[in-house]
Order: sequence, then structure tokens, then C-alpha cells
Amino acid sequence: TRRILVTGGAGFVGSHLCDYLVQRGDDVICLDNFFTGAKDNIKHLIGKPNFEVIRHDVVEPILLEVDQIYHLACPASPIHYKYNPVKTIKTSVLGTLNMLGMAKRVKARFLLSSTSEVYGDPLQHPQTEEYWGNVNPIGERACYDEGKRVAETLSFDYYREHGIEIRVARIFNTYGPKMSLDDGRVVSNFLAQALRGTPMTIYGDGKQTRSFQYISDLVAGLVALMDGDHTGPINIGNPGEFTMLELAEMIKEVVAPQLPPSVPAPTIVFKENTSDDPQKRKPDITKAKTLLKWEPKVALRDGLGRMIEDFKTRLGL
Amino acid sequence: TRRILVTGGAGFVGSHLCDYLVQRGDDVICLDNFFTGAKDNIKHLIGKPNFEVIRHDVVEPILLEVDQIYHLACPASPIHYKYNPVKTIKTSVLGTLNMLGMAKRVKARFLLSSTSEVYGDPLQHPQTEEYWGNVNPIGERACYDEGKRVAETLSFDYYREHGIEIRVARIFNTYGPKMSLDDGRVVSNFLAQALRGTPMTIYGDGKQTRSFQYISDLVAGLVALMDGDHTGPINIGNPGEFTMLELAEMIKEVVAPQLPPSVPAPTIVFKENTSDDPQKRKPDITKAKTLLKWEPKVALRDGLGRMIEDFKTRLGL
Ligand SMILES: NC(=O)c1ccc[n+]([C@@H]2O[C@H](COP(=O)([O-])OP(=O)(O)OC[C@H]3O[C@@H](n4cnc5c(N)ncnc54)[C@H](O)[C@@H]3O)[C@@H](O)[C@H]2O)c1
Ligand SMILES: NC(=O)c1ccc[n+]([C@@H]2O[C@H](COP(=O)([O-])OP(=O)(O)OC[C@H]3O[C@@H](n4cnc5c(N)ncnc54)[C@H](O)[C@@H]3O)[C@@H](O)[C@H]2O)c1
Ligand SMILES: O=c1ccn([C@@H]2O[C@H](COP(=O)(O)OP(=O)(O)O)[C@@H](O)[C@H]2O)c(=O)[nH]1
Ligand SMILES: O=c1ccn([C@@H]2O[C@H](COP(=O)(O)OP(=O)(O)O)[C@@H](O)[C@H]2O)c(=O)[nH]1
Ligand SMILES: O=c1ccn([C@@H]2O[C@H](COP(=O)(O)OP(=O)(O)O)[C@@H](O)[C@H]2O)c(=O)[nH]1
Ligand SMILES: O=c1ccn([C@@H]2O[C@H](COP(=O)(O)OP(=O)(O)O)[C@@H](O)[C@H]2O)c(=O)[nH]1
Repeated sequence: TRRILVTGGAGFVGSHLCDYLVQRGDDVICLDNFFTGAKDNIKHLIGKPNFEVIRHDVVEPILLEVDQIYHLACPASPIHYKYNPVKTIKTSVLGTLNMLGMAKRVKARFLLSSTSEVYGDPLQHPQTEEYWGNVNPIGERACYDEGKRVAETLSFDYYREHGIEIRVARIFNTYGPKMSLDDGRVVSNFLAQALRGTPMTIYGDGKQTRSFQYISDLVAGLVALMDGDHTGPINIGNPGEFTMLELAEMIKEVVAPQLPPSVPAPTIVFKENTSDDPQKRKPDITKAKTLLKWEPKVALRDGLGRMIEDFKTRLGL
Repeated sequence: TRRILVTGGAGFVGSHLCDYLVQRGDDVICLDNFFTGAKDNIKHLIGKPNFEVIRHDVVEPILLEVDQIYHLACPASPIHYKYNPVKTIKTSVLGTLNMLGMAKRVKARFLLSSTSEVYGDPLQHPQTEEYWGNVNPIGERACYDEGKRVAETLSFDYYREHGIEIRVARIFNTYGPKMSLDDGRVVSNFLAQALRGTPMTIYGDGKQTRSFQYISDLVAGLVALMDGDHTGPINIGNPGEFTMLELAEMIKEVVAPQLPPSVPAPTIVFKENTSDDPQKRKPDITKAKTLLKWEPKVALRDGLGRMIEDFKTRLGL
């Protein structure tokens, strides 16, 4: 059996990945500092013989003997990564450095969960992996965007300098069960707002677009990348593109029939947008399709349907 | 008197800056690990009561009590920063972090010597400070370019988060006496080659452009920025733009009359170019002119003339 380290394993993506790997029969170590992750996400795994949790901050070195490292540890939602920007950069740079150092020492394969944010506010549409991006280096999102760009640089430098086996995934917006109810990302915000009967908050005019991928598709993509033969970077995302207005409309339609009579029908309110918000974003997934034989399977409407059950339970509805 | 720390003070730019500050009467501490710097550059200052040298690597924390920090420590020439890319990133990120930590602790003003390389292979020409750049995050130059971009991010995050007084200079290609004879940069390469009677090596077709600034102009610009009221980023460079072919021609003209009869007249040879070499580069210096009342004074031909004396001496001609 393979020994697999998942950093950030108690977070949204990490906990789903741990589910998959434990289920597959690997020996899984989940490493997390629980900044944005939660014990709740992995409580059903605790006690299983092939699952283990380590409370640790990736900014500090650590010695572990593993065969594969899925390096996910990093706050991913704007409100969390802006909370302490310097810590965000340390997590991206030092965290990635430490995990690459470990990969080098134990000859493990290393996967970086990078992000579509490396493309910034893209001038190419849809975005291919060759695009160099349009990122404001001194803006409020820079701690995350530039931090991830340097994490990619470090990965490729370890690859070129030390021959480490690296895999770089550029993940596009992902949603699904276990998303933190108040981590500020748009799908979880709208859904929790609609279910609670408060207005869905659209930032700006709502004409900006995103392409939303369901979590099970992402997990399949990450595993295909890790177990395949290509370093990447490879976009992992769903090319279905929606404006925030369209997303709000769809959530309205999906949620309305499920609401108890006491909860008012979903409405929309407009709020000021944050700075440097990307105008549009959509992955070109040609590489993932051809090199990994992977493509997303779950359409947005279906994914939202599956997510509602989890949110209703957690909101006590 | 002000206590001023100059990191990278034994390098090309740093040693000229130390000259200026010591001359002005400040208490100057020159910190350097002597990776690309040289004792020779500062030997005339050693022994002066207001000058001091510390051999230290900025990647490690250090405690000093100062009023201003000029943070220059970082290899600047492609051959040096590509020599150990991971160390280059550590120097940029951890070095800048440590100096910002010091600035925070002692309430010093902090100046970052950033670079026109944050614009990468620019799609805007000339480059204004608002331009977000076109940098390959996973290329061979990324350790330097992305390292500096994150150093800027860190500076602005310390400014926003902790209220540190920061100054960010985006320095364009600079040349002058004391440039290391074989650090691989184009002006020093061509000049040393011409004086030695070996062909000047043009990489690629020689049609790429750069804008070259004489060192005394840069020092004046850095001091104006540090002592002024604007955080920047501010471009510090000379807008005179030349192709590498034009530069070689000019060096031919300036050097030929100075050559001893035994040395053959300068010639040119073409070599393969390195990856991701920026096609053109030229600063828009409107901000420096209006906010700092600074502009460059030394034209390329004049600067080359001043530089030749130094190179002839060091080459023993
Ligand atoms: N979800 C998305 O839409 C998306 C998109 C692009 C990229 N990503 C990337 O995927 C990864 C996981 O994102 P997520 O959506 O699950 O976010 P999340 O916030 O739910 O999970 C991140 C996890 O990392 C942990 N963590 C943060 N800093 C840490 C540190 N210094 N040491 C140890 N653990 C630390 C958190 O506690 C959390 O459990 C991140 O690297 C993120 O950048 C996610
Ligand atoms: N010269 C240019 O054309 C130019 C252009 C843009 C930016 N810059 C920036 O200006 C600064 C100085 O450049 P330069 O041309 O004088 O280069 P240089 O190589 O001559 O000087 C750099 C100095 O920093 C020192 N150094 C390197 N790593 C260090 C570390 N980890 N700890 C302590 N000292 C370290 C070196 O020993 C050297 O003395 C650099 O930050 C560079 O990025 C220079
Ligand atoms: O199993 C390991 C091996 C290394 N590292 C850390 O990874 C970083 C990079 O290690 P590497 O050996 O590549 O370079 P170093 O900086 O130690 O020369 C260092 O901070 C190490 O402490 C780690 O946390 N776990
Ligand atoms: O309550 C919210 C949260 C986000 N957004 C918008 O939704 C998009 C996606 O934001 P998110 O934070 O989910 O992800 P990211 O910006 O990182 O893609 C952005 O345009 C946000 O401005 C919104 O309109 N309302
Ligand atoms: O005089 C000082 C003060 C701080 N630091 C270093 O600067 C970094 C950032 O310091 P800060 O206090 O901002 O944050 P910390 O990471 O210590 O919370 C740390 O690595 C410190 O060791 C330093 O080298 N000299
Ligand atoms: O011997 C040399 C060294 C450099 N270059 C070219 O000169 C330009 C400036 O290179 P340098 O390394 O001085 O600075 P940077 O690329 O960092 O601007 C680049 O287009 C190089 O390809 C050249 O033609 N011959």
C-alpha cells in the first residue's frame, strides 16, 4: 500500500480527497493546522486503520516517510487569505518549500494544488496553461495569487534542479458538500443565504463570470494527474461558464421548491465589489482531456442539487 | 546622524550607494554575504568611522538598530540568479521578510530594490507602474521575476497590515564602474570583450531592446525615493532605448580609439538566446519626474566613456 500525505486534508477539497484515498485502500496521513479546516470534515475517517491526522503548520519543517504528497494546505477563500496576508505568503512559499524538501528527501511524488488565480484577471479567454496571466503584484489578492505563482516556480525549480517528480494542478472554482458555511465563497454564500431566507449578496454588477466544478470531478482530476505521467501545469475545471447573476438565478430555482413555508423565497441584493476581482474565468481543458483522459461529469444544476442536502442538514433545516 | 543599512552593499549598486551615503555623512552599515559582491568594491570605505561591514546572509534573521534600510541583497544577473534558483527565491522572499520584520521592530523606513523584470516580456510599451506584467511563472527566469514580485507583495502587505514606511523602486538596466567583469550582463560583457579583443556576444538576433541607466542616476533616484514621501512603486530608469546591435555598435565606436595597437578592433558574434528573454523594455518615468523631481542625466555614450577607465584599469590595460 502507498503512504499518502494530504496537507490541508481537513479542508473542503482535502477531506473529499482523503475520503477517496482511504476508500481506495491507501495509507493516508492528513496534515492540517485547522485554520480553515474542521475536524467535522474528517470525523467519519478518524479511527480507521489506514487514516491518521497530524496537527501541524506546514510553515514549519516536518519529517514524514511517504510515497506521495498532495500539497493542498493554504487558505483558499478571499476572506481567509486576506485575513493575514503575510501568513498566506509564508504558507504558500515556506509550506511548499518544506513539502518539496520532504519530497526530495524521501523521493516522493509531489502534487501542488495551484489555482486559476495564477491567471489573475485574464486577458486570454478561455485560459490555456500557456497563458502567463494578468496579476496585480501589489494588490490585496496578491498574497494568494503571487504566493501560488511562486509555489509553482519552486516546484519547477525543484523539478529542474533536483529531479523531483512534480505535478501542478491549476484548480478552477470548485463547490460541493462540506464547504465551510461562511467561508465567503460565492456558491456557499448564495446557497446558505437562500436556505436561511436572507438575500443573496452579489458583489458588483454580477456580470463577472466563473466556471464551477463539482468536487467529485476535482478529486478524480487530481488523482488522475498524480498517478499519470505529466508534470503539468494542467487546468482542472469545468468549462461551463456562468455570470454571478445566472448562478443566483439557478440557485433560486433549485432551492425554492425545497424551502419550508416559513422561509421567504430567495432574493438578490447588490454589494460593492472587492478590488481586482477577475472579470471572467473559464478553463481550456484540452490538456486534461488528452493527457489525463479526464473531464468533468457533473453539471452545475446537478451539483447544486447534491450540495443542498448537506447544507440543509448543517443548517438544521 | 541617520543609521542606514544597505543590504547587498558590496555589490555593484550597493557599493555606489554606500559611497554616496558615507560621503553625505550618514552612519552606514553594509550587509552582504559576498555571493556576487566583492570586498574590492568597498575597500576604500573600510576603516572610515561612519562605515561598517557585516558578513551575513539575509535569509537568516538579524537584529540591528537602524533608521533606514536599503534592501538590495539579491543576485541580479541571469547567470547568477539561475545558478541556484531555489536560493534566489529564498533570498527574495525570506530576505525581504526579515528586513521588513526589522523595519517593523525598529520603525525604520524600508526601500525595496525591485526590478523592471516584474513586467516580464511586456505587452505595454513603454512600461508604466500600473502595468501588471507578463511573466512566465514556471520559466527559468521565474526565480528572479516571481521572487521580486512576491517581495513587492510582502512590502505592500507590511505597509497595509503594519503601517511600515515602504518605498518600492522598479530599477531598469543599470551599468557603470565596478560592475563585475564576468557577471554576464550585456554592457559589462560587451565592454570587457571589446577591450580584451574577443568578439562581442549578441544573444539572438540582437533586435531586442533595453534602456540603460548610468549608476549615478540610479543612486540619485534611490535616495530621492527613500527620502521622499511616496511609497511607489516608481520606475527608476533611463528612457533611452537601444537594440543590442545598437549597443554593440556604440561600444565599438567608444572603445576603438582607446585600444592599444596590439588589440584587434571590436567584432560581433551571434549566439543562441536564452529562454523568455524580454523583447523590449523602456520605462515610463512620468511618476519619478513629477513625484520625485528626478530624472536621469547621463546619456549612454557618456556613461560608457566613464566606465571604460575603470574596466581598463581592472583588465590591466
Ligand atoms: N476550492 C477551490 O475552489 C479551489 C480553487 C483553486 C485552488 N484551490 C486550492 O485547493 C487547496 C484546498 O482548498 P480548499 O477549497 O479545500 O480550502 P480550505 O480552506 O477548505 O482548505 C485548506 C486547508 O488547509 C489548511 N491550512 C491552511 N494553512 C495551513 C498551514 N499553514 N498549515 C497546515 N494547514 C493549513 C486549512 O486548515 C484547511 O484545512 C488550496 O491550496 C487552494 O488554494 C481551491
Ligand atoms: N543592476 C541592475 O541593472 C539592476 C536592475 C534591476 C534591479 N536591480 C536590483 O538591485 C539590487 C542590486 O543589484 P546589483 O546590480 O548591484 O547586483 P550585484 O549582484 O552586484 O549585488 C547584489 C549584492 O547582494 C549580495 N547578496 C546576494 N544574495 C545575498 C544574500 N542572500 N544575503 C546577503 N547578501 C546577498 C551579493 O553578494 C551582492 O553584493 C538587486 O536587488 C537587483 O535585483 C539591479
Ligand atoms: O523531510 C523533510 C525534508 C526537508 N524539509 C524542509 O524543506 C526545506 C527545503 O529542504 P531542502 O533539503 O530542499 O533544502 P535546504 O533548504 O534544507 O537546503 C527545508 O526548510 C527543510 O527543513 C522538511 O520539512 N521535511
Ligand atoms: O457573496 C458573494 C461572494 C462572491 N461573489 C463574487 O463571486 C465571484 C467568485 O468569488 P469567490 O470568492 O467564490 O472565488 P474567486 O473570486 O476566488 O474566484 C467573484 O466575482 C465575487 O465577487 C459574490 O458576488 N457574492
Ligand atoms: O530585527 C528583526 C526583526 C525581525 N526579523 C525577522 O523578520 C521576520 C518577520 O518578522 P515579523 O516580526 O514581522 O513576523 P514574525 O514572522 O516574527 O511573526 C522574522 O523571521 C524575524 O525573525 C529580523 O530578522 N530582524
Ligand atoms: O553577452 C550578452 C549578454 C546579454 N545579452 C542580451 O542583452 C539583453 C540584456 O541582458 P542582461 O543580462 O544584461 O539583462 P536583463 O536580461 O536582465 O535585462 C538581453 O536581451 C540578453 O539576451 C547579449 O546579447 N549578450
